[in-house]
Amino acid sequence: MTSETVLFALNNLWILIASALVFVMHLGFACIESGLTRAKNTVNILAKNVAIVAIGMLTYAIIGFGLMYPGVAEGAWLPFEGLGGIFSLFGVAPPEGGMTAEYADYTYWSDFVFQAMFAATAATIVSGAVAERIRIGPFLVFSTFYVAIIYPLVGFWKWGGGSLEAAGFYDFAGSTIVHSVGGWGALAGAIILGPRIGKYMRTREGELQIRPIMGHSMPLATIGMFLLWFGWFGFNGGSVLSASPTGGEGLADYGFGGVSLVFMTTMLGAAAGIAGATLASWVIQGKPDLSMMLNGALAGLVSITAGADVFSAFDAVAIGLVGGLLVVASVILLDRAHLDDPVGAVSVHLLCGIWGTLAVAFFSDAATLGAQFKGVIATAVLCFPAALVGLWALRATVGLRVSKEEELLGLDIGEHGMEAYSGFQFFTTQ
Amino acid sequence: MTSETVLFALNNLWILIASALVFVMHLGFACIESGLTRAKNTVNILAKNVAIVAIGMLTYAIIGFGLMYPGVAEGAWLPFEGLGGIFSLFGVAPPEGGMTAEYADYTYWSDFVFQAMFAATAATIVSGAVAERIRIGPFLVFSTFYVAIIYPLVGFWKWGGGSLEAAGFYDFAGSTIVHSVGGWGALAGAIILGPRIGKYMRTREGELQIRPIMGHSMPLATIGMFLLWFGWFGFNGGSVLSASPTGGEGLADYGFGGVSLVFMTTMLGAAAGIAGATLASWVIQGKPDLSMMLNGALAGLVSITAGADVFSAFDAVAIGLVGGLLVVASVILLDRAHLDDPVGAVSVHLLCGIWGTLAVAFFSDAATLGAQFKGVIATAVLCFPAALVGLWALRATVGLRVSKEEELLGLDIGEHGMEAYSGFQFFTTQ
Amino acid sequence: MTSETVLFALNNLWILIASALVFVMHLGFACIESGLTRAKNTVNILAKNVAIVAIGMLTYAIIGFGLMYPGVAEGAWLPFEGLGGIFSLFGVAPPEGGMTAEYADYTYWSDFVFQAMFAATAATIVSGAVAERIRIGPFLVFSTFYVAIIYPLVGFWKWGGGSLEAAGFYDFAGSTIVHSVGGWGALAGAIILGPRIGKYMRTREGELQIRPIMGHSMPLATIGMFLLWFGWFGFNGGSVLSASPTGGEGLADYGFGGVSLVFMTTMLGAAAGIAGATLASWVIQGKPDLSMMLNGALAGLVSITAGADVFSAFDAVAIGLVGGLLVVASVILLDRAHLDDPVGAVSVHLLCGIWGTLAVAFFSDAATLGAQFKGVIATAVLCFPAALVGLWALRATVGLRVSKEEELLGLDIGEHGMEAYSGFQFFTTQ
Repeated sequence: MTSETVLFALNNLWILIASALVFVMHLGFACIESGLTRAKNTVNILAKNVAIVAIGMLTYAIIGFGLMYPGVAEGAWLPFEGLGGIFSLFGVAPPEGGMTAEYADYTYWSDFVFQAMFAATAATIVSGAVAERIRIGPFLVFSTFYVAIIYPLVGFWKWGGGSLEAAGFYDFAGSTIVHSVGGWGALAGAIILGPRIGKYMRTREGELQIRPIMGHSMPLATIGMFLLWFGWFGFNGGSVLSASPTGGEGLADYGFGGVSLVFMTTMLGAAAGIAGATLASWVIQGKPDLSMMLNGALAGLVSITAGADVFSAFDAVAIGLVGGLLVVASVILLDRAHLDDPVGAVSVHLLCGIWGTLAVAFFSDAATLGAQFKGVIATAVLCFPAALVGLWALRATVGLRVSKEEELLGLDIGEHGMEAYSGFQFFTTQ
Repeated sequence: MTSETVLFALNNLWILIASALVFVMHLGFACIESGLTRAKNTVNILAKNVAIVAIGMLTYAIIGFGLMYPGVAEGAWLPFEGLGGIFSLFGVAPPEGGMTAEYADYTYWSDFVFQAMFAATAATIVSGAVAERIRIGPFLVFSTFYVAIIYPLVGFWKWGGGSLEAAGFYDFAGSTIVHSVGGWGALAGAIILGPRIGKYMRTREGELQIRPIMGHSMPLATIGMFLLWFGWFGFNGGSVLSASPTGGEGLADYGFGGVSLVFMTTMLGAAAGIAGATLASWVIQGKPDLSMMLNGALAGLVSITAGADVFSAFDAVAIGLVGGLLVVASVILLDRAHLDDPVGAVSVHLLCGIWGTLAVAFFSDAATLGAQFKGVIATAVLCFPAALVGLWALRATVGLRVSKEEELLGLDIGEHGMEAYSGFQFFTTQ
Repeated sequence: MTSETVLFALNNLWILIASALVFVMHLGFACIESGLTRAKNTVNILAKNVAIVAIGMLTYAIIGFGLMYPGVAEGAWLPFEGLGGIFSLFGVAPPEGGMTAEYADYTYWSDFVFQAMFAATAATIVSGAVAERIRIGPFLVFSTFYVAIIYPLVGFWKWGGGSLEAAGFYDFAGSTIVHSVGGWGALAGAIILGPRIGKYMRTREGELQIRPIMGHSMPLATIGMFLLWFGWFGFNGGSVLSASPTGGEGLADYGFGGVSLVFMTTMLGAAAGIAGATLASWVIQGKPDLSMMLNGALAGLVSITAGADVFSAFDAVAIGLVGGLLVVASVILLDRAHLDDPVGAVSVHLLCGIWGTLAVAFFSDAATLGAQFKGVIATAVLCFPAALVGLWALRATVGLRVSKEEELLGLDIGEHGMEAYSGFQFFTTQ
């Protein structure tokens, strides 16, 4: 037995363990989204998140994996050449040449497992912005479309060796490729659906007033944040694509940093995000708002993700801190703009996704600035219209929003015929 | 230092990390079981699950480990020869020859830790079926008996080199050896105890009507499902008993597949289980029922467990999908048969355990069909009567069920003198 | 490539995975502390725990890491020589000589990540004892002081090569260095703040009566316990500082045991702690009290931590069992002494921390008894006065305790302007 064989087994195991950590993020999303919304819609939110995980994994096996890694010539915008092989996962055998033919550090199956865990994330992000008013059926149809087609296309551009990779765009673990993709869908969803009933009320003088709609369980939301952070160690750490402790030589040659550095930047980015959001919230709102603190942690994590392998400890703190400040400002401003995003998904995933992507140029390699903008814009140009059109088409045909009566009574009864907290007394009138 | 030494350290570490993941399953069981039952019995359910974990680990150290792996001649039904050594764990020193004497890939302690994590599972499964009406003391006595004697005996038959191993029975990670063992105990418990008060009510015309008793916290149940799935990556992945990425040559020679394949089948089996249960529930009940979706994920996981190392991606989806359909049908039919199983433990663990065990023959190696039936039947013949007699004896002597008054008021006050949600207003009359 | 290179990558990866597990402990603390207190103070407790994690990580990067590992001559009480380098983490480059210069088994970054995860724990422990009555601002100021200065100083004495290391003091993973440090702060906090309103009521005859104040969510508390236990496998397992399966030769030469043994003792210590606390509670209180069972598990874990690498299976069970008995007795006696510690932090972390530290001498190497006492006393002499003076100074200047009105209404509204369970009906008058 050679050392290379053992190293292969080690790298492969890390990709699988990292996959299990990324899996926990889906529970994290389910918890924070249901915690920050009302008790009467909790079953609906949980059901959406459970279904999306299944849809994400199954469609990725059927079509997404082949679409994202088609093996076509470098630099393309569309993976057409590879379409013949997209159903390969469902063949009995691994790819020609064996399990490890194209992989230096892990097997074909491990690659699929890790990538499939990522795939469902994009659709989950959308879920938060459309919560408490979207019908379950059309939402699942949209999610299937978004996770099976749109996410793998953007993924192909960068990680599949397509156009953005050729353009020198840098996105280590997906500030743009995963989080902004979800964030654009979230923005489209919030626009197409409009605000929840009672969120913006007109006074007798005709002025629109903002009414806060509080989440029903801050412990649930806090559990969600911690589990997302925990899973993010796999999301970023696994994106090293090996267990290499020290990695390559930095951004100059687009080599990957090692897992040690990535764990440190991920840890400090999130901590600084909490610090930034806590300070901003304390100053602006007069008291530290827990939901802002939780979103601050996620803001720091999204911000650090694009360059977690190339930032220094100081960079990580600075980038996370700015992310935490940004998310508080953004949540307040979007609310004033009457965009109703119940969990702050647009602020966390879209805005901080863009910030983190540009931070690679600001903090690590200024020469990438143009390529970073290109990546941000290309993602916007595909995802935002695609989500708008997809949701608009569903609204125009089968209908997208629950009835006014159902929204007031809660989607749990309307969509699922059950309550989340049977036996408890709570108000649905909020 | 040789490569073999490093590989040993790697394999050993994976068994320990997998053990920690399996440990999380106990929290998952505690969450899903308490979430799917009523608020007034929550402390009791949590206390049972905490106690079972301790009982499982301690009895496995005292007697279970020695009983399950006695080192007797192959093919036996009773591990009598090994009984002299069953207390060996409590000796100061590891077995003669050192920590690694009998193990190619991990140490004696790691073997014990991984196996002990499995042991408590069987008793935990029973807990769900007898919830909301069993007295805490007798339940713990029964659990001690079941986890200390019955589970290790069945485990010995297969994994300890006993009769079922000699017969060619295949059960990779325990669809039968763990889940059906628990499932038979669950069935016995539901029969011996009878239904909860108010579950089946007689109308004036004398007809028995089924009344749904809703769980009190769907977020808790959802957390439980996700944590069980997370832990299952260790349950199945660790059952490879090494970190080998690609494993052996398939079922033909009963070689073990690698961790990469096992992660993939585990992931897809659960996802397909969700899909199957969601569809079935939507069609039959008119709306997607979240508790069915959660049980669908577990059904997929139990179904895939017997052959997670030999199924293809397509197999995994097919087997999980059928598991998800089965569990919905079974929950509805058992309810019509007036078998009151509050969390669906019999449907998930017994029925899908049998299905997954037979699926090895259907999907991977038809020649094993006879051996698979033999394993299913042998387990039934030991476990079901043992559980029936054990529970019957407790009922006949110390009594098994709480008083009618205590059941109506809740076991939390009756058995533990405390409430789960102090300060909250909720109805106990449901 | 050599075997040594692969082993380095394996050891390094384990330190990082263990760090992620230790990270989960912070969620565990947040859950058990909020679960065991009242619903009206839940946001405050969660916010404290979120903030402490960020403060712990950031101050450890800025000053703690340099203070704890200054590289001064062995045996010192103060790390003055090293103060010049304490800000080194924020330099762009790793230490002179590269990422791995001073480390045989992992990188500089991995060392920082693992140690930073530990750092926040000490302040988190204090949080439990001062819950439901301390102002958020002064608490965070105290936590910053305690985690940035006091914890690294004690850490330096032992793990940084200072005075206690030279004295032969043995504390594998921190029964004293982490848990007692937190426990002394908890004791000081409970004394300085005094009991919660209504905890000890005077009857008409002038007698002080103890009134139990029940926690508001036992599921949350149970989730917390299980997550702490899960994380403890990283806390103790990672303290091996490598993935060595079998480790050294025992306590005689203070070599480290391997991860296999540490997982086993950690598992059995906690299980025995549950057993001890369940039995004690059942006998003393007449019924098994779930909060005692949960604290029993933590008591077992704290007790086993000082010598998890040198105890046998039998030792682990005995030490955990005693820990479980101790914690029940201590919680009851401290309550009778009118020391109001809402979650039992002093009993779990301080008392069992001392017990576990002394157990190293009782069970493993009697010759260390003097050194163990020395470590316990040195920690007390620094931490308890420092915490008393720090909290007293805050009380005398900015004020430490919320107003009577705020305490009765709940700190969630007073400190954060929000509720934890918006829409639910519950009593705040308890």
